[in-house]
Amino acid sequence: MSACPAATSVTAASVTAPAAEPGPLPVLGCDVRVPLASGGEVPYAALDYAASAPALQRVWDDVAAYAPYYGSVHRGAGHLSQLSTDLFETSRADVARFLGCRPGDQVVFTRSTTDSLNLLAAVLPADCRVFVFETEHHAALLPWRGAQVTCLDAPRSPERAVEILERALADRAPYGPALVCVTGASNVTGELWPVRELAAAAHAHGARVVLDAAQLAPHHPVDIAALDVDWVALSGHKLYAPFGAGVLAGRADWLRDAEPYLAGGGASRSVTRRPDGTVDVDWHTDAARHEAGSPNVIGAYALASACRALTEAGFETLVAREQRLLAALRAGLAEVPEVGVLSLFGPDAPRVGVLSFVVEGWDAGEFAAALSAEYGIGVRDGLFCAHPLVRVLLGGEPGECAGAGERAVRVSFGVGTPDEHVERFLRAVRELAVRPEGARGTARSATDGPQSN
Amino acid sequence: MSACPAATSVTAASVTAPAAEPGPLPVLGCDVRVPLASGGEVPYAALDYAASAPALQRVWDDVAAYAPYYGSVHRGAGHLSQLSTDLFETSRADVARFLGCRPGDQVVFTRSTTDSLNLLAAVLPADCRVFVFETEHHAALLPWRGAQVTCLDAPRSPERAVEILERALADRAPYGPALVCVTGASNVTGELWPVRELAAAAHAHGARVVLDAAQLAPHHPVDIAALDVDWVALSGHKLYAPFGAGVLAGRADWLRDAEPYLAGGGASRSVTRRPDGTVDVDWHTDAARHEAGSPNVIGAYALASACRALTEAGFETLVAREQRLLAALRAGLAEVPEVGVLSLFGPDAPRVGVLSFVVEGWDAGEFAAALSAEYGIGVRDGLFCAHPLVRVLLGGEPGECAGAGERAVRVSFGVGTPDEHVERFLRAVRELAVRPEGARGTARSATDGPQSN
Repeated sequence: MSACPAATSVTAASVTAPAAEPGPLPVLGCDVRVPLASGGEVPYAALDYAASAPALQRVWDDVAAYAPYYGSVHRGAGHLSQLSTDLFETSRADVARFLGCRPGDQVVFTRSTTDSLNLLAAVLPADCRVFVFETEHHAALLPWRGAQVTCLDAPRSPERAVEILERALADRAPYGPALVCVTGASNVTGELWPVRELAAAAHAHGARVVLDAAQLAPHHPVDIAALDVDWVALSGHKLYAPFGAGVLAGRADWLRDAEPYLAGGGASRSVTRRPDGTVDVDWHTDAARHEAGSPNVIGAYALASACRALTEAGFETLVAREQRLLAALRAGLAEVPEVGVLSLFGPDAPRVGVLSFVVEGWDAGEFAAALSAEYGIGVRDGLFCAHPLVRVLLGGEPGECAGAGERAVRVSFGVGTPDEHVERFLRAVRELAVRPEGARGTARSATDGPQSN
Repeated sequence: MSACPAATSVTAASVTAPAAEPGPLPVLGCDVRVPLASGGEVPYAALDYAASAPALQRVWDDVAAYAPYYGSVHRGAGHLSQLSTDLFETSRADVARFLGCRPGDQVVFTRSTTDSLNLLAAVLPADCRVFVFETEHHAALLPWRGAQVTCLDAPRSPERAVEILERALADRAPYGPALVCVTGASNVTGELWPVRELAAAAHAHGARVVLDAAQLAPHHPVDIAALDVDWVALSGHKLYAPFGAGVLAGRADWLRDAEPYLAGGGASRSVTRRPDGTVDVDWHTDAARHEAGSPNVIGAYALASACRALTEAGFETLVAREQRLLAALRAGLAEVPEVGVLSLFGPDAPRVGVLSFVVEGWDAGEFAAALSAEYGIGVRDGLFCAHPLVRVLLGGEPGECAGAGERAVRVSFGVGTPDEHVERFLRAVRELAVRPEGARGTARSATDGPQSN
């Protein structure tokens, strides 16, 4: 046993695994030890999965096995180029299968959810209006720069969300093309959004829907066809594959009809100079249209490897384990009177392993710094690239938010999280919450700097 | 010794290393064996570096050592987030040092050269005119979609290139803002372009210059300040770091004054809703402005690792070794009457280890396929994402191009290439060039498919 203060047991009520439950999936970094301010080291508890998740060991092993065989794709006559091209296109098919894509759907490899939504923003048809709740994170809130955007007020229930959207879509004038961008799971509260109902409302009103699955896909199966959304965007780095690739998957038509997202080789089928000296380009019409430049083969393969690993491990089993940990986390926090958990939809809303809170009398940055310095726990504090939502939540209904401050602390986990990390976190919160202000040390917040988000 | 047909020695004139010369830098894949059509296996000879280069072993080792410590950057309070943020920003500084950046220059991490040039195209000032030679590859030829582009005729000498550019810049009307995009080394011929002279001409005429160093940087030190170019674009995957990252480095002003390339978290400092419901954004003004979304930390670190490795190995020594191999390659090909090497600037032009050619009576795709199937050699055939240039070269001056066809074969190498690969390639070319058409087998070209470039 280590000297970690969290290695001692917590109350029996908090975290208990059923005998038959499989353990966490192996991830890189699970044996990394970090120094404590008090001296000594503890195993690092990565509880910031919502920002970026560790790589699955399986993903790393796949990447390591492939790396010596790396070659250019779509362009080489050599054996490794052929192998790499096959691997890249197989990865595309694996991702399509993981997301339940329909026949004819395209899977475009991007660099991240942010990139995927910027791509979609770049292919909107003329005069397309975009509807987005103010509760989205910035990746979903900001990309629609060429379009007229209707920013919808934060709803206080899933039902209200559908009502607000229906009203806004019905009232739009002119009643032209429209896109609704909706999150699957909030990156602040972890609460699930009524994706299927919002999609049905959108389609009933002649609008398309893109699902921002950045926070949903790592925690819950996503099925494009079953949810009846038009596109899904996600990031590999949140899906246990932090190698620089993301995905936009879904309807081919808008993608095919628009100008290429990036202009360059790979997207162009043929380039010729006209007699007047200008350049004429014949662009590809499949996913390659938006993937100019040499693709990130390792990133795409890593992402597909994660999809396969989650499926093969039994995603429903992983969900059940996460929900048990989440219940323990919430029950544990509910026992600490100084803690106020942020919620838009209330305590009964279904959610994933992402939770934000404030602690009475504590600055969020100082609290997060203390978790790191004294317990070896990594969380995030700030506004989580979802400034409007966090401001709504911090100034929310009385009783929902026990503390008050300009920022919050977020704890998040996933398939690689051992019970001990949640146990240690709960113990840390209990101990820190009651510590007098004069005895809190001087650990500085990571988000005080110019990169604050 | 292996059963490789190329393992037998070639004529003494071809490849001889000085006794004191260091060997190639270790790269992944150097011991990968591939099957031959005739049965058996040989070590793969990766001679398609110009498309994408293998990872340096050193780069892989650095990535492997870091991967367990991966964490979100700029956003987390935990130890690994702090470490990763430091690593990411140190990588930026390492790249700046490698490129000889000036004080105040910015290094933006992108995904590739294509992405870097698309970023620059997105930040052009109003009414900026772009000047580009038709000899550029598509990544440099096509991104300038919002601007008025002047496509300059292929020059037949470096001096003529400067003359053509000077004339075009002088004649532009109105005499407003302008950008010149110029390659450092051709991805078809390997020939060096007179970057310093073109930059001087551009500056004398009030224009800015971006150097496309995709093919130059892997073979030759690049110094922004010494060349006096305004920006440099390059790809990690050609620089022995195929992990999905590229770079645009240079002047901060255009980058700072333009709208963010991607909109989302990370690029935004603060997001608020106005009383009228619309969204107000305060964007970062440093490199983060154009790096929205969670960055590809592993990709950036890998790229910086490659920069450090090349510097520490002694880049000038690596250049000298490559030039010896290139001289052997050219001398060997000159002895094969059926081979015609493509050249814009003629035989005396300085060049890097990239060379394209045609073989009399052979289809380029079939020739490349035979190199792969019979000798385990990976090259590329086609038009190399530089369609106008290859067409100019294939229809070029009499005597410069012994064969004729619609496509060419490209052989390219770099710091990881052992002498044996060049020896094997020369032997293969000699044997194949004289093979009667009826005895050539049926290996199919990799570029016959829809992805042909």
